[in-house]
Amino acid sequence: MSPDRFPSKLLENAVNEFARLPGIGKKSALRLVLHLLRQEKEEVVQFGNTLIKLRSEIRHCRICHNISDTPTCDICNNPTRRGSLICVVENIRDVMAVENTHQYSGLYHVLGGIISPMDGVAPSDLEIDSLVRRVEAGGIDEVILALPTTMEGDTTNFYIYRKLKSLGVAITTLARGISIGDDLEYTDEITLGRSILHRTDFEKSLK
Amino acid sequence: MSPDRFPSKLLENAVNEFARLPGIGKKSALRLVLHLLRQEKEEVVQFGNTLIKLRSEIRHCRICHNISDTPTCDICNNPTRRGSLICVVENIRDVMAVENTHQYSGLYHVLGGIISPMDGVAPSDLEIDSLVRRVEAGGIDEVILALPTTMEGDTTNFYIYRKLKSLGVAITTLARGISIGDDLEYTDEITLGRSILHRTDFEKSLK
Repeated sequence: MSPDRFPSKLLENAVNEFARLPGIGKKSALRLVLHLLRQEKEEVVQFGNTLIKLRSEIRHCRICHNISDTPTCDICNNPTRRGSLICVVENIRDVMAVENTHQYSGLYHVLGGIISPMDGVAPSDLEIDSLVRRVEAGGIDEVILALPTTMEGDTTNFYIYRKLKSLGVAITTLARGISIGDDLEYTDEITLGRSILHRTDFEKSLK
Repeated sequence: MSPDRFPSKLLENAVNEFARLPGIGKKSALRLVLHLLRQEKEEVVQFGNTLIKLRSEIRHCRICHNISDTPTCDICNNPTRRGSLICVVENIRDVMAVENTHQYSGLYHVLGGIISPMDGVAPSDLEIDSLVRRVEAGGIDEVILALPTTMEGDTTNFYIYRKLKSLGVAITTLARGISIGDDLEYTDEITLGRSILHRTDFEKSLK
């Protein structure tokens, strides 16, 4: 769709803004903008102001670097959570994914990415030093490395492991294996091979 | 994803706003919002303000009801376009679709919908009276009905036809037939049947 065919500059600007979002093309952007034009003015003004407020006012927890509306986040502030356990994740989506399992009651540490020489992400770009300081400050028993199972994830795991290993805390990682519901024949051979090597006691697997 | 698991109310509000848009679920909305959080503050503020400006300032052309930044739109204002020809369309997306063919040099009339008793859209909800007044005012030779080929489109076509037929203008509709590039075997039988009945002279079809 050639941009000179837009009947209105305001329309074109709004379409271009939406089309800059990941996964939204010009046609979808136009559909979204025309939808907004059919809504009440107050609703669209609220949408715009919500975005402005989001970007202007959101903070990162000064302890775990999770997104937060307050200087320290609700999870770090929660006295019922196990403060001696830290789960290290790449980003806040991973925090939400772990929270949604309802299986974890410890705290988090959000790195803000993983080490990736290809993308120019060095350890100093991530919240690794603050993690080390957090562990050095004491009171931590265990650090769970919950990074992606990719080469970058493994590199980052290993980098953090070397920084923490002398500090006397348990360092664990998520169990790897076949996903619940997966067929063996569709499981990649590395996962399948590792899950044979790291086979678990049947009775324990029932828990 | 349970909403109580959002680490921030600002984040949750923004996700909810995006998730209200058609075709965007909670997961996609979160992805878009986290993308915005990674952008420069100025860019996100501009996004928000563009939406507010769009809904607050956009107008509809007082002649053809197309979207416009000015009281009359660029198409109605363009003296090189054929002012005696009106193409009646459902919405502004159809204006853009026809414009993109580069085959049409007349004016438009945007109804703002089509008659649909099921959706509670009556003729009085549409810009039909203003079309009749436009034709009555004189200077129009031909009205092209370019509405969807649905029952609602046909109903609206017929309604407009009855309103205009005594006013002495040619009333035409878009050619129906097999889409360019379509295989006969995949063409529905109604379209195929009508395109046999309304077969055209081969030499004319080459133009």
